[in-house]
Amino acid sequence: MDSFFPFCYSITMDTELPTIFSAKRTSFVRTSVIREILKLTVENSDILSFAGGLPNPHLLSKDILSSVMESVVKDHSRFALQYGDSSGYLALRTQITEKLTDVPWVTSDSISITHGSQQGLDILGKMFMDEETNVLLEDPVYLGALQAFSPYQPNFFSVPMETDGPNLYWLEEILSQNKIHVFYINPSYQNPSTYTWSVEKRKQIATILDEKEVILIEDEAYRYLDFLGNVYPSVSSFRERNDLTFVLGSFSKILSPGFRLGWAVVPEVYRSLFTAVKQGNDLNSNQFSQVVVSQLLDQMDWTKHLDSIQSYYYEKQKILSSLLKEYIPEAKFVVPEGGMFLWVEFPDVLQKEMMNQCLASGVAMVPGSEFSQVSKLSSYFRMNFSFLEKEEMEVGVKRIAKVYRDINT
Amino acid sequence: MDSFFPFCYSITMDTELPTIFSAKRTSFVRTSVIREILKLTVENSDILSFAGGLPNPHLLSKDILSSVMESVVKDHSRFALQYGDSSGYLALRTQITEKLTDVPWVTSDSISITHGSQQGLDILGKMFMDEETNVLLEDPVYLGALQAFSPYQPNFFSVPMETDGPNLYWLEEILSQNKIHVFYINPSYQNPSTYTWSVEKRKQIATILDEKEVILIEDEAYRYLDFLGNVYPSVSSFRERNDLTFVLGSFSKILSPGFRLGWAVVPEVYRSLFTAVKQGNDLNSNQFSQVVVSQLLDQMDWTKHLDSIQSYYYEKQKILSSLLKEYIPEAKFVVPEGGMFLWVEFPDVLQKEMMNQCLASGVAMVPGSEFSQVSKLSSYFRMNFSFLEKEEMEVGVKRIAKVYRDINT
Repeated sequence: MDSFFPFCYSITMDTELPTIFSAKRTSFVRTSVIREILKLTVENSDILSFAGGLPNPHLLSKDILSSVMESVVKDHSRFALQYGDSSGYLALRTQITEKLTDVPWVTSDSISITHGSQQGLDILGKMFMDEETNVLLEDPVYLGALQAFSPYQPNFFSVPMETDGPNLYWLEEILSQNKIHVFYINPSYQNPSTYTWSVEKRKQIATILDEKEVILIEDEAYRYLDFLGNVYPSVSSFRERNDLTFVLGSFSKILSPGFRLGWAVVPEVYRSLFTAVKQGNDLNSNQFSQVVVSQLLDQMDWTKHLDSIQSYYYEKQKILSSLLKEYIPEAKFVVPEGGMFLWVEFPDVLQKEMMNQCLASGVAMVPGSEFSQVSKLSSYFRMNFSFLEKEEMEVGVKRIAKVYRDINT
Repeated sequence: MDSFFPFCYSITMDTELPTIFSAKRTSFVRTSVIREILKLTVENSDILSFAGGLPNPHLLSKDILSSVMESVVKDHSRFALQYGDSSGYLALRTQITEKLTDVPWVTSDSISITHGSQQGLDILGKMFMDEETNVLLEDPVYLGALQAFSPYQPNFFSVPMETDGPNLYWLEEILSQNKIHVFYINPSYQNPSTYTWSVEKRKQIATILDEKEVILIEDEAYRYLDFLGNVYPSVSSFRERNDLTFVLGSFSKILSPGFRLGWAVVPEVYRSLFTAVKQGNDLNSNQFSQVVVSQLLDQMDWTKHLDSIQSYYYEKQKILSSLLKEYIPEAKFVVPEGGMFLWVEFPDVLQKEMMNQCLASGVAMVPGSEFSQVSKLSSYFRMNFSFLEKEEMEVGVKRIAKVYRDINT
């Protein structure tokens, strides 16, 4: 094929770590192809990237940010520039309780601030997972969860996903044939599939998990990114077994990933353990960012802000969807209700060939096989639409179309 | 005794975590009495606290901070408000290479930015420590290292500390009788003992560790807090075996703990593993803080800034030392060369009784037994002098003196 790039980029899709002295668990450490691709796109700005999950940084008003920074330095620096409570800044925990969760039993004491929701995954992995733990995942599954959990060496099980949530037949089969200890879910606009659990399935599965005494880790990173402004009730809100229920949230998508803050809703019986693990990990979360985010939540018109994010992403989703329909009508995808991705099947391609040809042609996507422990997903790719501008998306989709035609003729 | 507080505070010194479903490793998770005491002193502002290790937040100029914040929001927000490289912001890594390390083989590629140096300890624990790893510690040892390492269940060994570094006889005995895989050290103004390794011992021990092929984790959190502005050569700088040498640094004591940033110097062979573990832990460090700290390093007169921190802490150390000599002449301590602590022996006291009576009298210190796996250190306390003002220190020392007299009569 005609490559206008001088080099042929090739990214290895296997975990390649040196065979050196290290703990046994490190053979389970996973590298991320996404991060490799991100690095490549940073080094070469000619590559148009649908690969990352980067929110658009212009969605946070500079005026408000400037005024908040000024007030934090002027009025809160004694506090913002210090070590802090391992569970997090109380004012921020209270705001999360009031604005950002629907779990009925939540108080500010149940909230722990984390260094992104990714840290919540690591802490819960450390708390619950060893060689004897059976962990159920969605298939496909959020790659970051695999990265966080794998070093703790649990046994993974996977339930196939449908567009409205897990396949109930297989879920009941797995739960009846195995003692599942932990179920990790990402029920709203899932990364990567974009599938969103229906309210009916949320209720049914909450009841099943109660009966089977399964610990639930509900990852709600995309909760507020519904294109029409809907907010689904969390699965956790339907559970009776509060003591087995954890919810993870994130400010990365609704404010900015730059502040690197998320939170965990932690049931009372596990609070002291969660805090002790957090202390061992990093003592406490970034105090300066916590004060800034708390001030932002106070001073912004929150409804209006969410509204503008939601409409912006809706617009971008429609653009990418129609470009794909125009240039690659064979591509199949379910139009999502929210989030920042399309989960696209390109029939009859070999994933590795397609990915490397795309990179050589100056466009990046994430191969679907990254997101599964069990399925090949070998013609799937995850495409982000939040980062590129409209014109860039068009050029990018054209490049993908050319690669697809070249491979398929 | 006369307690002017209505309640008698009592802090449990045992790890008390609930017996609930959790991974095996959680029985090795340690809570920190320091953090419990900190929480108490935050809840009750009448307690004068020598317990924390809190730098003085006034040592960072508000004017510079304001102007940096303004420029970051105005000129760097597209970058500062985004996800970032898992190894950290390149500009900051380059500055660390140039200003903040003496390890001769360091390049910006060897630096990984961490969420405080505590995260460096956790990552290295995850990388190297399991039930088969033999880890040598100083005795006494930095409590945060015990918290980070313990959940990975290594076998701990301890070498007794002298005022100029480890006892060489015991070091050689331990190394000849056991295969030690990792040695964790805090050689300058150690927390808690304040002891500083002599240059001679640094050289000798570097050679011994090379011969025995021991991985060194050199924690340099206090490196730049010498009262006279000296900077000791790192133990790592004397090693031949660069591939077994890790150095941890921190911005908490030289800029502010509020930005929660540290770094690790990582040898080439371990870089990809370190970065993969970091990704699983939290994807990347706080991008906003990294840009702010990088700008601060650029715009501050660094020599002058360190100078003012050093003289300030020197002054505070002299005040606490002379107060102790005046009011409790029985108290024994080695006057440190730097850092933010005194390591004080109060002869003939029962630690738990002393601690609880002190808390009831409105003054806090950290009991020495917290810092050892093997020694009782039952009459030692760690006293911080960086946080309280002069007048508060005097009131605090008088309260301690009264408790000491009450117990000893």
